[in-house]
Amino acid sequence: MYRTNTCGELRLSDAGKKVTLAGWVQRIRKMGSLNFVDLRDRYGITQLVADDSADPKVLEVLNSLGREFVIQAKGIVCERQSKNPKMPTGDIEIKLEEIVVLNSAATPPFTIEEQSDGGEDLRAKYRYLDLRRGPLQRALKLRHQMAIETRKYLDSKDFMEIETPFLIKSTPEGARDFVVPSRMNPGEFYALPQSPQTFKQLLMVAGFDRYCQIVRCFRDEDLRADRQPEFTQIDCEMSFVEREDVLQMFEGLVKHLFKNVKGIEFNEPFERITYDEAMNYFGSDKPDLRFGMQMHEITSVVQGHGFSVFDSAEYVGAIAVPGCAGYSRKQTDELTEWVKRPQVGAKGLVFIKLGDEVKSSIDKFYTPEQIQEIAKACDAQKGDLILILCGPKHKTQVALGTLRLEMGARLGLRKGDVFKPLWVTDFPLLEWDDETQRFYAMHHPFTSPKPEDLDKFFSNDKEALAQVKANAYDIVLNGNEIGGGSIRIHDRKVQERMFEILGFTHEQAEYRFGFLMNAFKFGAPPHGGLAFGFDRLCALFGGQETIRDYIAFPKNNMGRDVMAEAPSVIDDAQMDELFLKSTYKKEETK
Amino acid sequence: MYRTNTCGELRLSDAGKKVTLAGWVQRIRKMGSLNFVDLRDRYGITQLVADDSADPKVLEVLNSLGREFVIQAKGIVCERQSKNPKMPTGDIEIKLEEIVVLNSAATPPFTIEEQSDGGEDLRAKYRYLDLRRGPLQRALKLRHQMAIETRKYLDSKDFMEIETPFLIKSTPEGARDFVVPSRMNPGEFYALPQSPQTFKQLLMVAGFDRYCQIVRCFRDEDLRADRQPEFTQIDCEMSFVEREDVLQMFEGLVKHLFKNVKGIEFNEPFERITYDEAMNYFGSDKPDLRFGMQMHEITSVVQGHGFSVFDSAEYVGAIAVPGCAGYSRKQTDELTEWVKRPQVGAKGLVFIKLGDEVKSSIDKFYTPEQIQEIAKACDAQKGDLILILCGPKHKTQVALGTLRLEMGARLGLRKGDVFKPLWVTDFPLLEWDDETQRFYAMHHPFTSPKPEDLDKFFSNDKEALAQVKANAYDIVLNGNEIGGGSIRIHDRKVQERMFEILGFTHEQAEYRFGFLMNAFKFGAPPHGGLAFGFDRLCALFGGQETIRDYIAFPKNNMGRDVMAEAPSVIDDAQMDELFLKSTYKKEETK
Repeated sequence: MYRTNTCGELRLSDAGKKVTLAGWVQRIRKMGSLNFVDLRDRYGITQLVADDSADPKVLEVLNSLGREFVIQAKGIVCERQSKNPKMPTGDIEIKLEEIVVLNSAATPPFTIEEQSDGGEDLRAKYRYLDLRRGPLQRALKLRHQMAIETRKYLDSKDFMEIETPFLIKSTPEGARDFVVPSRMNPGEFYALPQSPQTFKQLLMVAGFDRYCQIVRCFRDEDLRADRQPEFTQIDCEMSFVEREDVLQMFEGLVKHLFKNVKGIEFNEPFERITYDEAMNYFGSDKPDLRFGMQMHEITSVVQGHGFSVFDSAEYVGAIAVPGCAGYSRKQTDELTEWVKRPQVGAKGLVFIKLGDEVKSSIDKFYTPEQIQEIAKACDAQKGDLILILCGPKHKTQVALGTLRLEMGARLGLRKGDVFKPLWVTDFPLLEWDDETQRFYAMHHPFTSPKPEDLDKFFSNDKEALAQVKANAYDIVLNGNEIGGGSIRIHDRKVQERMFEILGFTHEQAEYRFGFLMNAFKFGAPPHGGLAFGFDRLCALFGGQETIRDYIAFPKNNMGRDVMAEAPSVIDDAQMDELFLKSTYKKEETK
Repeated sequence: MYRTNTCGELRLSDAGKKVTLAGWVQRIRKMGSLNFVDLRDRYGITQLVADDSADPKVLEVLNSLGREFVIQAKGIVCERQSKNPKMPTGDIEIKLEEIVVLNSAATPPFTIEEQSDGGEDLRAKYRYLDLRRGPLQRALKLRHQMAIETRKYLDSKDFMEIETPFLIKSTPEGARDFVVPSRMNPGEFYALPQSPQTFKQLLMVAGFDRYCQIVRCFRDEDLRADRQPEFTQIDCEMSFVEREDVLQMFEGLVKHLFKNVKGIEFNEPFERITYDEAMNYFGSDKPDLRFGMQMHEITSVVQGHGFSVFDSAEYVGAIAVPGCAGYSRKQTDELTEWVKRPQVGAKGLVFIKLGDEVKSSIDKFYTPEQIQEIAKACDAQKGDLILILCGPKHKTQVALGTLRLEMGARLGLRKGDVFKPLWVTDFPLLEWDDETQRFYAMHHPFTSPKPEDLDKFFSNDKEALAQVKANAYDIVLNGNEIGGGSIRIHDRKVQERMFEILGFTHEQAEYRFGFLMNAFKFGAPPHGGLAFGFDRLCALFGGQETIRDYIAFPKNNMGRDVMAEAPSVIDDAQMDELFLKSTYKKEETK
């Protein structure tokens, strides 16, 4: 070992000990006759000191040091003259007797501090330096703890972690697969798994009863902000369970993580709301419950009074923003512009200010009494600003939900250190797509319909099918979906009907999922499960909304690793071995 | 829940309780008026019973059952008349009150028993049924425990598990990469990692100090028996360490696993031998120490007596096989044929039988006294059979080592429940390849030379370079390499010299490993590590030599998943999106 102790562990009680430390030079200072070095490693920072009367060899080395040099330092632990109560090692310093440069360092392109002066691109290129900074060290430490505690909980509940393959069969339903050409089977490709879905269901058929895995998944999507082509799931499945068992089990996991990683205890059951309620009250299937400001449908209250904008709308909805009745004309104009942005997509914004005086943008069409009726329908209080949107129901609900989040943010109600988990249940099973004139599975084709909706499921009535609810559930934290799952179809007849509804021919279903359907012939248990998005879960536990700092080596939004410069071209010889030819250059020169 | 208890947990103390179980029908028997069902789940088997006076509905369902049906059974826990002491639940049975078929099952294509009647191909196709069998359930349970205990130990030693990327840059040195075409970066490819080697070194540069990961790796090799294109490593790296620290740490891990998974305590340090010793005494760099029968070089003893076969040989070596002096002519002839097989490759076999009478195949050339000299040089005892091979040194040592293993196996000395771990150290750093007239790295290009060999390393003398020892080590268990690693090069000058010796131009090295070499500029700590082959480690702990049963969904030796039928052809549309064309069919029609 190059050290007897880490840079985070020495205390006043160690005074007098002769120690050896090793680490990186964080800072070098000279104060009068004293030379100080802050020595850093993963565990902390320890101050080294030498006065001008020290061994000249020590002083010579000290003079040669630069930021981020790797050194080994030997000396005596001494009590500090001026202690630093902010540092765990702040009571002591090491009086240097010997110092060795283990490796020099070029000047880093940005400062290795809590807040770096480097831009995002530069820090991405030198990710290994950015990772030395406190926020990233803590982010990955948190992630490690989350993984440890996740496995501890699941192991205690008899889950077995079983590794499923990464080189699998391409089954294109949902997002695009990454594919891997097979040299030994020329012309053929493996796919990288979008999730271990089929394998975990096979493990249930195989009788493993409770399966879990913290596992990498892959999706070749055009990357929206804060998505990664490879991401990590906590993937779980259980046999002989109903929905309630799954919810209890994984609510238990989230509570375990909050307690053991964050020190936060949830003693009450998580809230549960249905998908329909979530849309009606929050305009989102992943509501942020850190604040109220629920949506109210006021269609019947506002219609029939001659205001044609409302009268012709399918839906009129409102939120009451607390304490904002005093908004100026400029502020409401700005909000109106904000909701008209394409990302929100509303046509306009109606407001009512419940100040000492009541003012609204619809005074012409409604009497003061009618305005009060509207305010009552919104559960609004004096001092509130009522914001109203109207239009097609689903679209307007989503827009109003977006406005609700924005107002919550503007009022500082979306705090990183407040945690509001909840379950959203009873999702629609199917989504109709007008363009392709077919149903798509809202989750995936193995999600079972709710038992009470089986009649509708087997009917041929499009309206009835659209109403079938899935035995599916999402777990939501602070406006983010952190996990989702369902009770699966274990009955081959139901599975075949599902494929039929989705428009797969028997042959297509057989080609894509034949081995799973075949497996179901041999005694499939009732089963269900859930998968958490581990990257986001970690980010949210860290109080952050973006996942990039919680992944050691993330890709940018072109799917590139700018540090390692991947992807890259490969040798012609390798292409030939794979019987592959790129058509890209031809396209370029056209 | 479909059950109140599992099929493995009820005992006599539960008698009188009303319970609900769920699982698979293992066996159905009728004995007189009694109907028995053995109900199986992951946790065990419980006997269900109903006599002919039971509820007719129960009897009707019982009559409809077949093997592997999934059922739910309700009844009362009762003491058995005839107990089965071999089963944990053997004291009780469930008197049936209600039984429900949750899912029927087609007759499985082979029996789901400890020893199945199905052939390997059939069981591979129906892997989800094969996985129901006891040996595979136990294999994956063992693997789960190994992973849990590995993480427990490493976490207790301050290792952080950090996930490294799967979509990385192709750096072709060593085995062939699997590649992944990038749709968003047309004409470019990611590679799947053969190991996280460069990333774990970057994590050391980033100051994470101790890293571990149980991680999938990929190698596109022509598959020898018992190799898989995707396999799992316990991958570890530590900063500020010397070789001794790494050996202590991971010897500790292996001891922890033996103690906590197998209940075996190793109180002594593991044996350590150098690569040269391993070759000299065992003809292998992964010696099986479960038995002795060490090799002896007898070149100087046998040469100069006029036996030209020996006199012209670079090397003559022997083993003394205990208790086999009585081998018949037929047996020694058979052994002679055995060593001549191409897999062993010896030209012939010389033997000396140290029976009551001493007989040998070289009586013509050596006096009885000389024969006794040879026997003495072999540490042979009365009753031993001495087997002698000669030829070029390395090749003959390997052949003699293979013969040693064979004789150990024939004598039953290679027991699955005896464990002999050891370290092999001081490997050569470089291997000269005559064909390409260049050196190759014996481990990988980041392995450091031993400090005392640095002069040779920087010399331009081919002989001197060939003698440079690596600061590398393997851990070996029962004749299998279970892990290997090294102290890495952390000095850019040494790394550049290494690339130079390997014949990389500066540009090639820069292109392939530029980001790692660049990282080393900014303060790389001394570091080293080790990776275990997790699949094999699990198999050996399970007393098996083949890894296939310790992987849930393995591939065959053509890299195919015969259950899921992967790899497979993909859509033309997908090929077009990737700007790829297969040239395979054209080749076929030539």
